[in-house]
Amino acid sequence: MPGLGETLRIAVAGLGTVGLGTLQLLRKDSEVIASRCGCRIEVTAVCARDRSKDRGMDLSPFKWFDDPVVMASESDADVVVEMIGGSDGPARATVEAALGSGKHVVTANKALIAHHGTTLGRLAEERDLNLGYEAAVAGGIPIIKTLREGLAANRITRVYGILNGTSNYILTSMRETGRDFAEVLAEAQALGYAEVDPSFDIDGVDAAHKLSILTALAFGSEVDFDSVHIEGIRDVSALDIAFADELGYRIKLLGIANLTDGGIEQRVHPTLVAKDAPIAAVEGVFNAVVAEGDFVGSIMTEGQGAGAGPTASAVVADLIDIARGLKCPTFAIPASSLERGRMVPMERHVSCHYLRLHVQDLPGVIADVAAVLRDERISVESILQHGRGEAEGASVPVVITTHETSQAAMTKALEKIAAFDTVLEPPRMIRIEAL
Amino acid sequence: MPGLGETLRIAVAGLGTVGLGTLQLLRKDSEVIASRCGCRIEVTAVCARDRSKDRGMDLSPFKWFDDPVVMASESDADVVVEMIGGSDGPARATVEAALGSGKHVVTANKALIAHHGTTLGRLAEERDLNLGYEAAVAGGIPIIKTLREGLAANRITRVYGILNGTSNYILTSMRETGRDFAEVLAEAQALGYAEVDPSFDIDGVDAAHKLSILTALAFGSEVDFDSVHIEGIRDVSALDIAFADELGYRIKLLGIANLTDGGIEQRVHPTLVAKDAPIAAVEGVFNAVVAEGDFVGSIMTEGQGAGAGPTASAVVADLIDIARGLKCPTFAIPASSLERGRMVPMERHVSCHYLRLHVQDLPGVIADVAAVLRDERISVESILQHGRGEAEGASVPVVITTHETSQAAMTKALEKIAAFDTVLEPPRMIRIEAL
Repeated sequence: MPGLGETLRIAVAGLGTVGLGTLQLLRKDSEVIASRCGCRIEVTAVCARDRSKDRGMDLSPFKWFDDPVVMASESDADVVVEMIGGSDGPARATVEAALGSGKHVVTANKALIAHHGTTLGRLAEERDLNLGYEAAVAGGIPIIKTLREGLAANRITRVYGILNGTSNYILTSMRETGRDFAEVLAEAQALGYAEVDPSFDIDGVDAAHKLSILTALAFGSEVDFDSVHIEGIRDVSALDIAFADELGYRIKLLGIANLTDGGIEQRVHPTLVAKDAPIAAVEGVFNAVVAEGDFVGSIMTEGQGAGAGPTASAVVADLIDIARGLKCPTFAIPASSLERGRMVPMERHVSCHYLRLHVQDLPGVIADVAAVLRDERISVESILQHGRGEAEGASVPVVITTHETSQAAMTKALEKIAAFDTVLEPPRMIRIEAL
Repeated sequence: MPGLGETLRIAVAGLGTVGLGTLQLLRKDSEVIASRCGCRIEVTAVCARDRSKDRGMDLSPFKWFDDPVVMASESDADVVVEMIGGSDGPARATVEAALGSGKHVVTANKALIAHHGTTLGRLAEERDLNLGYEAAVAGGIPIIKTLREGLAANRITRVYGILNGTSNYILTSMRETGRDFAEVLAEAQALGYAEVDPSFDIDGVDAAHKLSILTALAFGSEVDFDSVHIEGIRDVSALDIAFADELGYRIKLLGIANLTDGGIEQRVHPTLVAKDAPIAAVEGVFNAVVAEGDFVGSIMTEGQGAGAGPTASAVVADLIDIARGLKCPTFAIPASSLERGRMVPMERHVSCHYLRLHVQDLPGVIADVAAVLRDERISVESILQHGRGEAEGASVPVVITTHETSQAAMTKALEKIAAFDTVLEPPRMIRIEAL
């Protein structure tokens, strides 16, 4: 680490919104950062695809590189900040080149850490280098530091959160306006809250990247993105949101990792949460993460999960850690000690469920459905049906909530229910999480 | 710091609830803690007033000391954990002796840090020792680490929070049941949520201790407890809570430190906060702290602010920092660089206000009050009066909310209003905070 009065040299790979935000932060708050670090943090090199593009910022003080891997290997930087994105390709090559040439790495790249976190953590630790990824999860919320250090005295039993602002914005807007998914998505795209191709966000992949990182930190397991059960929000309807409200719930896209007797569950899915749970009140583009530990109880942190400012705040916090000489195991314990194979398959997951059916309004239909549930030993908590169909045999929605049951039993029951002629649409199932 | 396979030795001074909780945590979670530290954390010495007391725990593995100062100086510990309490006397002497003999210190003692934090921070830093005090503020919430490290890239503009669980429990219960302060306090005492002598909690002193620590961390100023403006919750009535609700607010006891053009304000007082502000939803004994930074925006963390488990979680997090060799300036910048004299007096504070008067129901009374406000250039936002007195001249409550005005003008206006014969009780003023 640099001594007092010296300089920590930074090379920035990728000059998108977050890369530029980081440059702006380091310039605007340089004095206060220097007083906190005992040294200056100075950008010496930058790299992006197009040198000629106008970025509204004078880049002439920095040495320009066309190739991030060359910059990572050959620049005089102490730290390479990777903002290229993507789990492989140039991002991965840049991070490997930086670590390989003895440079610390700070990245905002959740896909990279979700897919290669264990390997990169080992590489960094073998060479006694920092691999900072605070910005990869929940933007400005310092949840990596909180889990790795602030709550390090606890056995974590569950960690869950609203990890994707786009999805939370859409669900919030659907509830507030009563409109359906497609319409609200189109609006979110027009407002810039959703991408032109929104699938990473609304199909739960982005949240799953982040969840797999939190799981490793919380439970000391290898980062295992492939084991995450993923469901997005495309199938959540205005009707479901209204029924949930009537039953005392909000619908949130949660990423949840919890320790069961059989192992670790990692799942991203729309979830019914009680209205009075703190996370139910987290609305719009905000993110929130809850960690539950054996001594600390439940700690929730809420804040902006994306955007140039919050993400730059997290990137530079990692740089300040490096400047201060703070070094922790990448995932709270040494990467070489992370355990493998502790994940349990989703069939074993047990929870209460919300089912919504469209059935023909005929005598005996509910009895048939109830019999299927009984045969699978699924215990019903409540049945909700409003009014009647307009004519005998017309379609009416019926909502059933169940007591705790396994995913395996529920899957079988849903197959049988879907096969009834009197059930007019595929049944919709949403899990209820006890918080 | 101890190397791999070695041991960090701890001496614990004070075996009350939190001291015992810390011993229990270190025993129960010793394996996971060792895997995170790369070394064992082992208690080697303890000290309390009464050796013969049954604490439900076998203390024979630990060397017993009758005098904490002797333990701090002469034991073989690497770290002294101070849980004695009190801003001076044996707590202070123990911490000074520990630092003086080259031992790190971890303390849960907010009064000690509020009164002597700057001096003790200097002493620790001169000797290259850690002075950990995560447990002194907001129990299990890792707000010290969050401000010192997680948000270190930001200029903090305001930090505020619900810093006293007893007061928040009382205010929550008053709102939920409509009962008045004295009755709810008596119930809280019976339930163990309030002390037999509750004054430190309900008069705002405990919150002010914590706030003064947050201020130093957030703004790089010396810890300055004496400059905190303190008002407690004794005068908050059920009537005020009901009127606040009608106006769209909750009443919370907040500790607020903010940066103004003139300097730093530090204040603890009952506060009207908009119902849809995240902190308005923090109920019961829970604590929450919000930090606002120039890049991160607003980050709120909520959790248990007291109790053996959460406090032990924070104490041991500081121990793990020491075991990992993590060392930061005590208050984010070196204690010798903390600035003095940046506090602004409360007369200069500007905010919107809620006023509640009991006036005689006679023509002209409101006009007289309004004239006083006009003379002090205080602009009225709303006036609320329900129904009429039972007879002409009977007492009716009137609530006035104002636009932004200085504390100085408000104090003058309140003196004049109180002097009217038609104003039957001293006017009640509560500040409204824009969140």
